[in-house]
Amino acid sequence: MASTLGIVSPIQMHFDTPLMLQSGEVLPAYDLMVETYGTLNAARSNAVLVCHALNASHHVAGVYADASGKAGELGWWDNMVGPGKPLDTDRFFVIGINNLGSCFGSTGPMSIDPATGKPFGARFPLLTVEDWVDAQARVADRFGIERFAAVMGGSLGGMQAVAWSLRYPERVGDCLVIASTPRLSAQNIAFNEVARSAILSDPEFHGGDYYAHGVVPRRGLRVARMIGHITYLSDDDMASKFGRALRRADGALDAWRFSFDVEFEVESYLRYQGDKFAGYFDANTYLLITRALDYFDPAKSFDGDLTAALATSQARFLVASFMTDWRFAPARSRELVKALLDNKRDVTYAEIDAPHGHDAFLLDDARYHALIRARYARIAEEIA
Amino acid sequence: MASTLGIVSPIQMHFDTPLMLQSGEVLPAYDLMVETYGTLNAARSNAVLVCHALNASHHVAGVYADASGKAGELGWWDNMVGPGKPLDTDRFFVIGINNLGSCFGSTGPMSIDPATGKPFGARFPLLTVEDWVDAQARVADRFGIERFAAVMGGSLGGMQAVAWSLRYPERVGDCLVIASTPRLSAQNIAFNEVARSAILSDPEFHGGDYYAHGVVPRRGLRVARMIGHITYLSDDDMASKFGRALRRADGALDAWRFSFDVEFEVESYLRYQGDKFAGYFDANTYLLITRALDYFDPAKSFDGDLTAALATSQARFLVASFMTDWRFAPARSRELVKALLDNKRDVTYAEIDAPHGHDAFLLDDARYHALIRARYARIAEEIA
Repeated sequence: MASTLGIVSPIQMHFDTPLMLQSGEVLPAYDLMVETYGTLNAARSNAVLVCHALNASHHVAGVYADASGKAGELGWWDNMVGPGKPLDTDRFFVIGINNLGSCFGSTGPMSIDPATGKPFGARFPLLTVEDWVDAQARVADRFGIERFAAVMGGSLGGMQAVAWSLRYPERVGDCLVIASTPRLSAQNIAFNEVARSAILSDPEFHGGDYYAHGVVPRRGLRVARMIGHITYLSDDDMASKFGRALRRADGALDAWRFSFDVEFEVESYLRYQGDKFAGYFDANTYLLITRALDYFDPAKSFDGDLTAALATSQARFLVASFMTDWRFAPARSRELVKALLDNKRDVTYAEIDAPHGHDAFLLDDARYHALIRARYARIAEEIA
Repeated sequence: MASTLGIVSPIQMHFDTPLMLQSGEVLPAYDLMVETYGTLNAARSNAVLVCHALNASHHVAGVYADASGKAGELGWWDNMVGPGKPLDTDRFFVIGINNLGSCFGSTGPMSIDPATGKPFGARFPLLTVEDWVDAQARVADRFGIERFAAVMGGSLGGMQAVAWSLRYPERVGDCLVIASTPRLSAQNIAFNEVARSAILSDPEFHGGDYYAHGVVPRRGLRVARMIGHITYLSDDDMASKFGRALRRADGALDAWRFSFDVEFEVESYLRYQGDKFAGYFDANTYLLITRALDYFDPAKSFDGDLTAALATSQARFLVASFMTDWRFAPARSRELVKALLDNKRDVTYAEIDAPHGHDAFLLDDARYHALIRARYARIAEEIA
């Protein structure tokens, strides 16, 4: 696929200062995969951190070279980030980081534990959103970036942006929180729990040490991803994409086949997505990331009072939600907006009428992109 | 538990006239488990058929005797059916039938195939809602009931009521369709597909012939049921029932345990429901019933035109939906109502403001029960 950014390459950064985790465990050393786009200015004031969601990575924009082993792979937010894009890499220095514990080159459950010479597997420590943010802060330090012009993310990436505004309030100029939530609802946790149950109960999970058995809990991963995909699309979007259309070879009759094989288009779609995911994503990483999602709750130390929790933030906020998103519905964004307004923060809120459910944050919607573009234009003027 | 109906017992009915199925297959003979409450009047005009949903059975109301092997088990709609209840068994003769293909005594995949002397397993034919209705009609014949005063059902039971009104229009007086839909949406099918995938991919499923291996695909059934339970409750109901409350032994700290074991109350609830279900429900039956749900679509033979499809109905309709039901949302009931009104049918529609999601149809809501009570009072007067 084409990208206005062209060919990009990731870099692997090694960190050997121990990282104290929220669980109390310590990670003595770790690697992070990082990608950057654009040029850091002399004042180091034009840096933007883009945080990724569940299955994405440091590869935010651009394409990989043919010789990279991932020939032509387009960044997951290439429509948002690049020269002339809403987050314009002609003006900003944009950083993507594969989160600690993920499976795209950063240290995680698949990595070799130096203490044993074997993959960490189930022994890799559970992480929180705050742990990710702490690890990301060290990447900023490595680049000499004291303060990000903006930290931005969608979904789980939005939670990281919120966590940045609370954990390093003086290091965040603008905070862009898209299709996100200040904490998961019981229903959100329930979906995560079912997906995890599918993986944990897969006989090929082997308590998380499937690497040693030369297998992968594919069945569990597949079911987990299928569940996820239902929650990423709106009911209406699924109806217009698939409806009750049957999956038929050319010329086949429009009659039931009376089997549990693929009969409807939507079944074919889900199976394809499930199989694809099971082929590239690490099961332990899936468990770890969904648990970090469950745990994220800035209000927890404040007796559930989100307003009190957000009092330490200093950033200017842009919060955006999508009307058909039922995974993190607009009401969840409004909770965040209310708590910010209670604190008299500068906050802009947009509720966008897009049909694509939660996935809308990744898509190229004109009003949505105009909103983000306008905010970055303003930030660019302010730092010029 | 107490029931105003007291002790009831099921009867097993054998049918040896071959049943031609929608798939083209023929079932040479079969048994159906049946329960009745109240007394059939001399004119045989006071009979009501209650159709069940996915995991229920012929045991609609009353309790089983201590010696029955299911001591004290209360019928699944005991709050609705009994002396003085909305469907008053002092006035009506109520019939519950365990659907063909189910696993509570009616012939299904667990039954012995006379042709082989082994359980049918994967060789049991796939069924449709219309097949169930045809089998139910023979039960009516056996009782000498030419016309039901009413056919009623919730969820999948409501689809059976609709199918009755189309397949045997002259045999249905009132048709009560609660928390149902005239056909599944893509999202509904998607949830079924994920649940089936969990079962089909369980290594202990053995292509449907797990009986011979002395095992049950428990993991798959468990995940399937957990997914189901999320769709039965509303987001708000889950929030008020569980919220983000942690599952803690007395005196334990309100701190994360950093594990994939149960951490939140909602996880404990889902695991409990999943384990319970895997202990009593047959996996092949689960597949069969969800597929019958997917296939149900009266409009299919009419190019998707539901109005045309419903033209043959003669019954008077009561359609009820629940505002927080997102599995079969009110909009789905309204499709049915519109198509009935297009045909100038007598139809009453109620959209009930109850917080309990899809499950509301099984619960004792005062306005909901008053509505059903009033309808049956009117029917009772008409047949008196």
